[in-house]
Amino acid sequence: MDDPKPWLALARAPGLHAGSLHGAAGAAIQPLELPRESPAALAALGLGEAAIEALRNPAAKGLAADERWLAGPGRQLVTWGSPAYPALLASIPDAPLVLFVEGDSSTLSLPQLAIVGSRNPTPIGRDTAAQFARHLATAGLAITSGLALGIDAAAHRGALAGGGRTIAVQGCGLDRIYPRENAELAQEIAARGALVSDLPTGAPPLKQHFPRRNRLISGLSVGTLVVEAALQSGSLITARLAAEQGREVFAIPGSIHSPLSRGCHRLIRQGAKLVETADDIFSELGALLAGLRPATHAEAPDPQQDSGHALDKDYEILLDALGFEPAAVDTLVARTGLEAGAVASMLLILELEGRIAQQPGGLFCRRLPGKKE
Amino acid sequence: MDDPKPWLALARAPGLHAGSLHGAAGAAIQPLELPRESPAALAALGLGEAAIEALRNPAAKGLAADERWLAGPGRQLVTWGSPAYPALLASIPDAPLVLFVEGDSSTLSLPQLAIVGSRNPTPIGRDTAAQFARHLATAGLAITSGLALGIDAAAHRGALAGGGRTIAVQGCGLDRIYPRENAELAQEIAARGALVSDLPTGAPPLKQHFPRRNRLISGLSVGTLVVEAALQSGSLITARLAAEQGREVFAIPGSIHSPLSRGCHRLIRQGAKLVETADDIFSELGALLAGLRPATHAEAPDPQQDSGHALDKDYEILLDALGFEPAAVDTLVARTGLEAGAVASMLLILELEGRIAQQPGGLFCRRLPGKKE
Repeated sequence: MDDPKPWLALARAPGLHAGSLHGAAGAAIQPLELPRESPAALAALGLGEAAIEALRNPAAKGLAADERWLAGPGRQLVTWGSPAYPALLASIPDAPLVLFVEGDSSTLSLPQLAIVGSRNPTPIGRDTAAQFARHLATAGLAITSGLALGIDAAAHRGALAGGGRTIAVQGCGLDRIYPRENAELAQEIAARGALVSDLPTGAPPLKQHFPRRNRLISGLSVGTLVVEAALQSGSLITARLAAEQGREVFAIPGSIHSPLSRGCHRLIRQGAKLVETADDIFSELGALLAGLRPATHAEAPDPQQDSGHALDKDYEILLDALGFEPAAVDTLVARTGLEAGAVASMLLILELEGRIAQQPGGLFCRRLPGKKE
Repeated sequence: MDDPKPWLALARAPGLHAGSLHGAAGAAIQPLELPRESPAALAALGLGEAAIEALRNPAAKGLAADERWLAGPGRQLVTWGSPAYPALLASIPDAPLVLFVEGDSSTLSLPQLAIVGSRNPTPIGRDTAAQFARHLATAGLAITSGLALGIDAAAHRGALAGGGRTIAVQGCGLDRIYPRENAELAQEIAARGALVSDLPTGAPPLKQHFPRRNRLISGLSVGTLVVEAALQSGSLITARLAAEQGREVFAIPGSIHSPLSRGCHRLIRQGAKLVETADDIFSELGALLAGLRPATHAEAPDPQQDSGHALDKDYEILLDALGFEPAAVDTLVARTGLEAGAVASMLLILELEGRIAQQPGGLFCRRLPGKKE
């Protein structure tokens, strides 16, 4: 990216998102052209006064704070239409035009499962979240959550414990960590995955930021798993958004005597998949992930564009590189010249399709056709 | 009934049921005409050699044992097409032609919920079954189960504790009680509801009798609630039969770490309604029971015949007899001249429809129109 400033100005326009790029007339507009539009044209795109003012006269102080933050290690913007912009997120109607990211932005394009739930779970709920996250992360799914206390933190920790990737979406600017109790966890996540927000530097963790944050958690993920949630839990909002975004919703049942199961039971009644084991999630996601192949490709250049054929070629290359002798991901990366993130995603999908098998020690090998375990 | 012998002979013909009354040609035959049919005609109805032999040459010894049993207090046959034959059961494809009943056979025509589950439940599961049964029975639903140890017994006991009606369907002849641990409970059930079997005197509790017993449990009931069931539990058979019979299936979720929740979770995945409270069942059954009015009428003469108009008249009579001053069921029976069972059923339905309210002490009164609690 040449100059981040124009994108930072977009990030600071309240209510602006990818859906705003298509006015009532239907004509699409490029994000960076927005500041050059007339106030009337911007209003026709559905933008309010504050957003119009922010686009036409960006606040220099805010942009300077963003640029100072961006100068730190591992920090970057992921912008609409760029190769790093995650395809799944791009498909939601109110996708942000700019993501603030600390860590490895390629993680955002891995197939992810969101795991969310109560901030005050039972010890069993906490363990369940960690175990599911660990199991799923070991198998190659990145685990996305909201860095909250309780289930969220347990999910992030479980993914890290499994040596997997995890993504924390914050409801405030990335210049601060909320809640502060999870500051150390956030550092680990930035080192082994990514911290993400669509809020600019200085944005505090206001109550109204959380539904907005939740749409990113569900929108990045192929599905959302809710582990313990009271009827008032914000994780039910994430689940609802996931359903609205056409993603899978999973919920873990519990005792009818536990208030922390009520939210999950309501979701199941509304059509969420009842989940007892991590394998239940795999068996649901097998077909889904196969349909999502484009999203798993690190180089997928344009989220709007289908690049199925190029991908099939990559799968062929990977399968050719995979013998019946177990090989590590690094070996496969070296053999194929593909990116590590892409190889990891493809391995997951091939495993779900039963074409390869994972061996102890994170090694992979091909399966004999027709042989099932 | 004049002479029970011809019906007892039918009860002893293996594999004979109401579905056998319609041959391949489609012509219906009256049950008591069966013994006069030729072996070829009987074979054309789908009956096997043993059934044909039993119909044409009934074993005198067996019939004599049945008659001795029938001579005992409170014992009776409920036969196909008679006013006492429960309409809901009549609608299943393999309805028995003869029911052996000890107790009040009018209970069989009350709206019933089956509550079944593990023979080795957790203490919480046992309590849950008893509490649900008590609550539902107090509200006027009869509770039907299989007299087994564990959940079944807890359900029967809960219904009795609530002062309600309960029906135990046995997988053996009614000359014995199985399991013997529940002999005392069976006596109470006979006194406050009914013991039922379609097996003749002397039939032992063979393994193959239980799926057959289960179809009666589900077939008598508007729905089946499963409370704790392992994946191998026989109560899953009852649930499957209920679904096949077009009845509602309810299941109570539990911890994913409890093997006794697996069966319930499987049912929920297959479409059973997840239930947290007895009210969940009422809200599902409200519409169902309203549609079942004919089945709740003690005098419903022919299960095949719609008697909706006569019933509406009874509801009018009952509502006229009900003031805004709370009245007991006995009072209403005296005021209306209707049978107690019919009054109880109608009260339940009117309560579900929100037209009357139950007061403490089992008293009922009308509700002001438009007023909801």
